[in-house]
This record gives sequence, structure tokens and C-alpha cells, in this order.
Amino acid sequence: MKIVVLKSEVDHKPVAGDFIVCDVPTPVCPTDGVLVRTTHLSLDPYIGSVLRGRHLGAKPPIPMKEPIPGAIVGQIEESKVSGFEVGEWVYSMNGRWQEICPIGGSSIRKIDPSIAPTEAYIGVLGMPGLTAWAGITRLAKVQSGDIVLIDAAAGAVGGTAGQIAKICGAKKVVGIAGGKEKCQMVIETYDFDDCIDYKESEWKAKLSQTLPDGLSVFFENVSAEMAMVALSHANLYVRGVLCGLVDAYHTEVQSQHAINAGLIIGKRANLQGLVVYDYFHLWDEYIQQAATWISTKQLKFKEDRVRGLENAPSQFERLMNGQNIGKAIVTVS
Amino acid sequence: MKIVVLKSEVDHKPVAGDFIVCDVPTPVCPTDGVLVRTTHLSLDPYIGSVLRGRHLGAKPPIPMKEPIPGAIVGQIEESKVSGFEVGEWVYSMNGRWQEICPIGGSSIRKIDPSIAPTEAYIGVLGMPGLTAWAGITRLAKVQSGDIVLIDAAAGAVGGTAGQIAKICGAKKVVGIAGGKEKCQMVIETYDFDDCIDYKESEWKAKLSQTLPDGLSVFFENVSAEMAMVALSHANLYVRGVLCGLVDAYHTEVQSQHAINAGLIIGKRANLQGLVVYDYFHLWDEYIQQAATWISTKQLKFKEDRVRGLENAPSQFERLMNGQNIGKAIVTVS
Repeated sequence: MKIVVLKSEVDHKPVAGDFIVCDVPTPVCPTDGVLVRTTHLSLDPYIGSVLRGRHLGAKPPIPMKEPIPGAIVGQIEESKVSGFEVGEWVYSMNGRWQEICPIGGSSIRKIDPSIAPTEAYIGVLGMPGLTAWAGITRLAKVQSGDIVLIDAAAGAVGGTAGQIAKICGAKKVVGIAGGKEKCQMVIETYDFDDCIDYKESEWKAKLSQTLPDGLSVFFENVSAEMAMVALSHANLYVRGVLCGLVDAYHTEVQSQHAINAGLIIGKRANLQGLVVYDYFHLWDEYIQQAATWISTKQLKFKEDRVRGLENAPSQFERLMNGQNIGKAIVTVS
Repeated sequence: MKIVVLKSEVDHKPVAGDFIVCDVPTPVCPTDGVLVRTTHLSLDPYIGSVLRGRHLGAKPPIPMKEPIPGAIVGQIEESKVSGFEVGEWVYSMNGRWQEICPIGGSSIRKIDPSIAPTEAYIGVLGMPGLTAWAGITRLAKVQSGDIVLIDAAAGAVGGTAGQIAKICGAKKVVGIAGGKEKCQMVIETYDFDDCIDYKESEWKAKLSQTLPDGLSVFFENVSAEMAMVALSHANLYVRGVLCGLVDAYHTEVQSQHAINAGLIIGKRANLQGLVVYDYFHLWDEYIQQAATWISTKQLKFKEDRVRGLENAPSQFERLMNGQNIGKAIVTVS
């Protein structure tokens, strides 16, 4: 079977050439686990940080040995865990970039292919979706009348967050994304009221124009600098969810990425840090809700997909450069 | 009567020599206000920021003309407002460094000298006390079992905040203050469990030692740097109240004073900005509660007092340099 490994240690934003596809023997089923034939592999920005050894609590994979980590969806090929049968569909966040993944029994969750396409379980129904839902409903507690600003709005987390904010009653949802095509997708597919292209020179003026009444909630997953842009447009008592610092994964100066304390005080802001691990116990609850929203077309999702594990490296490079339009996935089989 | 004005514009941390005492005619009572004979004048750190034109929404007083602003307590000498009689005790945050203050009717509050000494109304029952109470009870919502860290613990806000945290059920309250004498006062007078002297070289190690179980709440009114020290000792889901940046009032580089966003996310912190103006409508409620706590000796206060308006400039310089032990006040008459 095919696996993908690093050629050597990575000290830069990963590019396709950092990876190599190898053929190895099919693994043996773990004594307390299953073998899963990978159908879809999730590519997520934080993996870029893991590969550089910058992600708290996650060691980078050993070059030329350990396959790249990633969430997967697939079907059980062999099982040594009671309750998990061959042929069942499962999700695991402990997958690898490999065609057949050995997974410990505690790291697999069954998924229901009847309520959504299986690939949705690594996107809108997976960690990105759960992250968005937790931030909007559990931390910001978006409700009727809120004006919500979402950064990285074309991403899997941001796009879902904005749609859930609308479902919760937000009267206006504005996104920020990079490039015309992404902004168009955010407005047309995700139904945001507006989306500002931060690559345009006049973007800050446009942001002010589209937020004449300020904003009451922001969801930030790119940078402290953008959080400060949001704060500067915020009304008093703004709730801000700090979910990620994608920009910080690959910058060389790690000491910056800070939010001005005077701005927090002046706006009487309520800032909350979000780590999705804290909400895993609510995953089933989220999936139930989200599946309904998907069926009523209130919650849409878009994928940026390649086929074949051998194309994972180039797709990952596109993700690192923000060239993906929609959730980046690799359909493996 | 005597007033105190600036000699000229101030672009540094104010010192006694920046002020001058003048004799001027007694003012006329405003048509919609009162004349108040100033008994006690409050000296507060933020006034240093006002004098430099760095305080949002507050213009510095015109040199050689307008007396320095400050909260006062005094007795009505003349009144053109119905319901306010000559001889009644009042508080105003729109007072001035002058022996007889003309005050608009909407800026005076009656005070009850029977439940606490009148000077308490510019300290523990005044804005500093209300600030502390709002932060501890309304934002951090301190409750049984909390471990609370209070910066500037010897100050009027910090000292009150720590005591109210204890009243709310905190199992441990630790202060940070500058100098042995202040730390001793925080422990002996304000009954904190411990107080760390940040002027000692080993203070960070001592802070770690006294917080073996981390902390669940912090109250910061000095600097973003100290907020980050608090965050680094914090348990997950810490609640942090950002109340002031005393250090920033007089530093030359205004762009710093920022809090690392990765630290906020990693700790799943909930940071809230506090501005006391938002709680003025709860002032009476606070005074009722605090008066009871004062009578039962659960809430103590300490003053650092000089007598005579002519001594206000040197007392203010002491405050600017953190040399006061207790709430800085001037007893004017």
C-alpha cells in the first residue's frame, strides 16, 4: 500500500517537495484496534504546524518512517474490537496519510453515511465543524441581532461558523477572505451578507463601510493582527472567539501575535480562547443538529478535492498557500 | 481660596514641580449646581494619564487656568438644586484640586456619613471600590474554591478586590505588590494569603511556589506583561479581568502592552475588559453591601493621607512613584 512521509525534517512552510510517496507492506491489525481502508483524508492547516514541531503536544512524524498524521474517513477492513464490524464506516482523527490505517479502538467513531456524504465527517461534521459550532454557540453565544465578523471565511471552520451564526439569529454576517474567488464563494455558497478581500489595498475602508453599525461578535482563526482589526470595528462588550493563529504557524518571529490590552479594556471586550478538544463530548449533539441543517440547506459545505494519495503533497502545498477554495480533502479510494 | 493648576503642559510622568498653588476668588454657585467645600480629595493613578492627554475622552486641564481634576468628598456650602441642602455631605467625581468646588447638579451624589467615615467614599466606597467589586463579582464572578491573583494588591482597587474575592468564597488570594512594606500591609491589613514583592529578584519563583495549584482568576491593573505572568500560572478556563494599564500611562512606547494570543487560546482563557463607568448604576447597591462588610471587619481599608491642599502635588508625585501605602488622599479641610 501507499503511504506519504517527510523526506527530512521541515523548518519552513511545507511544500510538495518535502514529501515522498512510498510503497510498504499492509500493516497488521492492532490487537485492540481496527484496520481502516482510507476513503477520504482531511488536510488541515494545523498539520503544517505539527510538521514543524510547533504544535503543542504533537511531535512531528519521523522522516522516511512515520506517515503524515491526518483525520480520515473510511471503512473497517479488519477488526479486533467488539462492536466494530468489517464494512462499517468510521472516522478517526488519528489517521495517517496511508491507504490502510491501523487505528486503536479508542480513536475511532462510527459515522452514519445515511445523513450526509461520508466526506462531510472530516469537514462540516468533523473537527472543523465542531470547532465552528463550539465557538459560535458555546463561547460567543450568538443570538438574535448580533453582527458577526468571521475571518478566514472561506475555510472549513470560518464558513461553517458564519452559517451557524446566521442560524442562531445573527442579523448580519460578514467574512474576510483572501481573493475574489473565495469572497464570491463565501457570499454565494455560504450565504454571508458580505465578504471582504484582504488582498485588496482598500480592504479596511471596505470593511468599515460594510459594518456601519460596528460588530458584536468576531471569530478569529488567523492572527492577532486581524483580531485587533476586528476589535477596532467592535461595539462595546464585543465577544471575541480566538480559535487559531494560522499566520503564526509559519512566521519566523514567534514572540509577536499579541493583542493590545488597552483595546480590550476600552471595548470592554470579552475574549475567549477556543480549543476544540474541549468539545469532543458534544460531537454527537453537534452532528445531530448539523445533519438537520444540512438537510434543510441552511448549512452548506464546499470541498476542494483531489483524488489519489499521491496527490496529497501538492494539495497540502495549495492549502499552505491558501489556494484551496473549500475544505481541502484527498479522496484516497 | 486655594487651587492647584499645572504650570505648563506635561509630557512626562508628573512630579510635584509641575504644579503650582494659586489663590483665586471663591467661585459663584452654578445656576443648576452647588458649591462644595472640599473635605477630602482623591488622588488616582489615571489622573497622571489625564494630565498627559492620554486618557480617552478627558482633556488635560489648561495650564495656569483650570484646576487639576479629581474626585472629592465635602459639604454643600450653597445650593441651587432642589433636594440638596447646605450642610449635606456629597461626593463628586467631577471635583477639582480646589478648596471650594462648583459642581453641576447631575455630578453630585449624597453620601451617608453614619455608615462609614466620609473619606471612605473616595476610596473603598468610591470608584476604586466599585471597580474592584464589579471586576470580582460581575466579570470574574468569583466563587467558592477559586484561586485568585491580584496585581497592585496594595492599591485601593487591588486591596479591595482581594478582600471581596475572599468574601465571595475564594479559597486562596495572592497579591503582587512593590516592596516589603506594601506586601506586609496586604497580608496583615487586607488578609491576603500571600503577597509577592515583584521588586525581589526571585519573585517569579516565589509566585510559582505560592501557587502550586495554579490560579483560576486574575485581576490585572498594571500591565499586559503582568497579565501574561498571570496567564502563564493559570489553569485552563482562567477568567482574567483587565482593569487598567498603570504602567502604560507613562511609558514612551505606546504600541506594546499586548497579550500573546497563543497564550489566551492555549489556556482557553476568558479575558474581560473592565471600565468602571459601566457600573455607576450599581453604586448604591455596592455601598450597601460594602458598608455591611466594613462594619463586620471583612473589608478593611488603609489611607495614605496628607493634610492641606498645598501638599497635593508632593503626594501626587509619591503616588506616581508607587510610594503610597494605601489609598492616596488629601484632607483639604
